[in-house]
Amino acid sequence: MQSADVSGGKNRFQVRKLEITDKSKGFIELLQQLSVCDSVSNKQFEERFLELNSYGDDHIVCVIEDDRSGKIIATGSIFIEKKFLRNCGKVGHIEDVVVDASARGMQLGKKIIKFLTDHAHAVGCYKVILDCSLGNKAFYEKCGLKQKGIHMTTYFV
Amino acid sequence: MQSADVSGGKNRFQVRKLEITDKSKGFIELLQQLSVCDSVSNKQFEERFLELNSYGDDHIVCVIEDDRSGKIIATGSIFIEKKFLRNCGKVGHIEDVVVDASARGMQLGKKIIKFLTDHAHAVGCYKVILDCSLGNKAFYEKCGLKQKGIHMTTYFV
Repeated sequence: MQSADVSGGKNRFQVRKLEITDKSKGFIELLQQLSVCDSVSNKQFEERFLELNSYGDDHIVCVIEDDRSGKIIATGSIFIEKKFLRNCGKVGHIEDVVVDASARGMQLGKKIIKFLTDHAHAVGCYKVILDCSLGNKAFYEKCGLKQKGIHMTTYFV
Repeated sequence: MQSADVSGGKNRFQVRKLEITDKSKGFIELLQQLSVCDSVSNKQFEERFLELNSYGDDHIVCVIEDDRSGKIIATGSIFIEKKFLRNCGKVGHIEDVVVDASARGMQLGKKIIKFLTDHAHAVGCYKVILDCSLGNKAFYEKCGLKQKGIHMTTYFV
């Protein structure tokens, strides 16, 4: 039975693009484990989904659905910035990576990062970047990233 | 003559949006002070300009032109990321801020950051963010930003 489990496990944790039906599969609840996301109506979700979808390869949200539970258990997003720098180069910005608390330790975060990084590479970016806490540095280093500098912010609310 | 100078100085350092004629005013040479930007043809510049322009308020490149020399002496850009997080919130990403080496110490960088931050606020972002080296932390703190975390990257080239 072990080999069946391994095979099932592989299919169980495929990375795919976000679908409009994923709100009912716990996508918003998953994001709540990362930051504030407490009042997204179905209408707001659909509008934002369609808006992001209209950007095509320039904005991807990916997820991992556990096909046993039917729940979204990992997600991450990337958008492609177009620059004049680097001879009109492009940069992939990875954002909002989160793995469900019950599904950690199964390399799902690494799969998400690989999916998004591969996307950035495929569309011709010269680099991919992300911001994180110092506590997550070791995880992202395992994903192949290196610290380049610091991350600054101003909150308006 | 001092008051005339002060008045002239004010007009001299207005922040405005990038215009398609700015390539001939040293815009690319200014970016070269920040990073690699060594082979942008007029055609490439115009294509990228028009592409970014088509994003409207979602991607702004601003500049300061010294109207005495006719040269672009400071620039910065911002693009607006649309999220599901923060109740379908928006984040302003500031990029590619540079002040000409000969024009430093005149608060031009601060003007650029204020222009971009005001834009993010005006279009409804809940925060504005940027990445920088540790050496630039003090400058951005003077602009009102605070360190939130670290910045990681993978280069493909």
